Amino acid sequence: MPELRKDPIIKRWVIIATERARRPHDFINSKEKAETTFCPFDYGNEHTTPPEVMAFRPADTEKDSPGWWVRVVQNKFPALDPGAEPERFGHGMYDVIKGFGGHEVIVETPDHNATLATLSYQQVKEIIWAYKERFRSLEKDERIKYILIFKNHGREAGASLAHSHSQLIATPIVPKRVGEEIAGSIDYYSFRERCVYCDMVNQERLEGTRVVEENKDFIAFEPFAARFPFETWIVPKVHNHNFGEITAGEIDGFAFILKNTLLRIHKSLDNPPYNFMLHTGIRDGKDMTHYHWHLEIVPRLTRVAGFEWGSGFYINPMPPEHAAMYLREVKIDGEG
Amino acid sequence: MPELRKDPIIKRWVIIATERARRPHDFINSKEKAETTFCPFDYGNEHTTPPEVMAFRPADTEKDSPGWWVRVVQNKFPALDPGAEPERFGHGMYDVIKGFGGHEVIVETPDHNATLATLSYQQVKEIIWAYKERFRSLEKDERIKYILIFKNHGREAGASLAHSHSQLIATPIVPKRVGEEIAGSIDYYSFRERCVYCDMVNQERLEGTRVVEENKDFIAFEPFAARFPFETWIVPKVHNHNFGEITAGEIDGFAFILKNTLLRIHKSLDNPPYNFMLHTGIRDGKDMTHYHWHLEIVPRLTRVAGFEWGSGFYINPMPPEHAAMYLREVKIDGEG
Repeated sequence: MPELRKDPIIKRWVIIATERARRPHDFINSKEKAETTFCPFDYGNEHTTPPEVMAFRPADTEKDSPGWWVRVVQNKFPALDPGAEPERFGHGMYDVIKGFGGHEVIVETPDHNATLATLSYQQVKEIIWAYKERFRSLEKDERIKYILIFKNHGREAGASLAHSHSQLIATPIVPKRVGEEIAGSIDYYSFRERCVYCDMVNQERLEGTRVVEENKDFIAFEPFAARFPFETWIVPKVHNHNFGEITAGEIDGFAFILKNTLLRIHKSLDNPPYNFMLHTGIRDGKDMTHYHWHLEIVPRLTRVAGFEWGSGFYINPMPPEHAAMYLREVKIDGEG
Repeated sequence: MPELRKDPIIKRWVIIATERARRPHDFINSKEKAETTFCPFDYGNEHTTPPEVMAFRPADTEKDSPGWWVRVVQNKFPALDPGAEPERFGHGMYDVIKGFGGHEVIVETPDHNATLATLSYQQVKEIIWAYKERFRSLEKDERIKYILIFKNHGREAGASLAHSHSQLIATPIVPKRVGEEIAGSIDYYSFRERCVYCDMVNQERLEGTRVVEENKDFIAFEPFAARFPFETWIVPKVHNHNFGEITAGEIDGFAFILKNTLLRIHKSLDNPPYNFMLHTGIRDGKDMTHYHWHLEIVPRLTRVAGFEWGSGFYINPMPPEHAAMYLREVKIDGEG
């Protein structure tokens, strides 16, 4: 069973996959492995994935059969185990939690060759509805402290299958980075009595130089202290810490700006590998009300990762003001 | 001039290279660029690098001429500018520091094809002496708040030149990750009245399962909560927060265990790309005395980076106990 282990110095939790023995050889050139032609996410191969958790499909179609337009299944190689109990124990000076949690795959389309950037607005809306449904269902479990929805697009970004999909990991702890954001937003609030994300939205709208696109409910911009070239954040204009509370109207605006932003990146950078992470507080009652949910998109264009990885120090060769200008210039009319 | 910009939420500083205008096209397939055959670090090409900051060379040889065995030069494309003043200013809600700092390259050997893992112990000692000399010289500058020595080995790890070299960046701020380690070591001390790194050294020696190698002054082990397969830390057994205070005897032990550990990784994983980062407190007087300097080695074997990057959450498919066993098994007798 996987194990969550805590770094005693900076208190970062790590998932250690203890169940699968691997040899050094497994890591040599592993990243060069050719992709197999068989795709478990295509119509007709539903039986090759774990049973579906949910799907949007016509009423007259069977579970785990074709016909669906969005399908959610358990990850075949889950990083965390829904069957485990999140039991905590010590190992000398170290802290461990048994690897309880959820790891699901959201198959975004039956079309093997589509990408999130090139799907219709309607299909992107359906995907976000699936995100919300799974989020609301999982957040009911009191043992789950965090739900992280993310996407790896392209092999360079860690996608092992080409068929467009995103993932959801439900954890018994709050990931370090998100915990820092929550703590930082509380710090800022206690100092200014305002939400730091709301202030950012206001300043970005005022300046305009880093804005990529804006609609009634959302704004997409390059953050002032962007870590990576073309790093782009999508932030709701109305303050809310919990993605699970997104309304039907907001889902329309979110789908529109998400698809457009990914399409701008797709066209401007020739369909680059990218990751996105949806950062949200979960549940009311906890002190997350000063937090502000948002989506961070990170194209994987530069290789100067290791140093920055190890130091938390980032060198970005592309000023966000320039990146925003290029992304604004992309023609996306009539798409989707 | 480059700019340091601060993320207002999690207070991470980022270097934004504002001086070089780049277009989206510059990032497309940039990582596939073939390496040029000309090498500025080879004998006879000294004039193609910025002037040497220091070098170990025979007394009868000229500066910026062949004969040296370790050579330190300013980075030709510095991320930070020694000529600038670290002036702080605001940009609306955001904080900025003008891009003051140092960025140097330590050329580890004249041998174009050597690697740190395959150099002689004596040569590795010389390199560490160069690290110490540059560290001691730069820490005198009160404007410099941190000095980070690191190495990128292999293109996948961000090395733009194949000729074995490491780098030094001197910054007007403490990098976030190191600041977290310093804060964490203070937290631990205030709770246990012991150094967290000293406690780790003791537990690792007691358990032995994660130890790779040990000598009189240093221990190399896989951390209990390793983020990456074969992540290895080298920690001095005697508590000291400041690498700059390393003694001649300790340099011998450090060179020995560093070369051996890199050689084990080199042999076990077929010369994989890797990064290492030397984490140290600087100067006495500041409250860094509870900190404990060390070196972190991170082979770049897995691609599941983006998600972890964005979330601070790591999934490690290789238990550190297994990795340590494989590295211990490597035969390195009679090398160097």
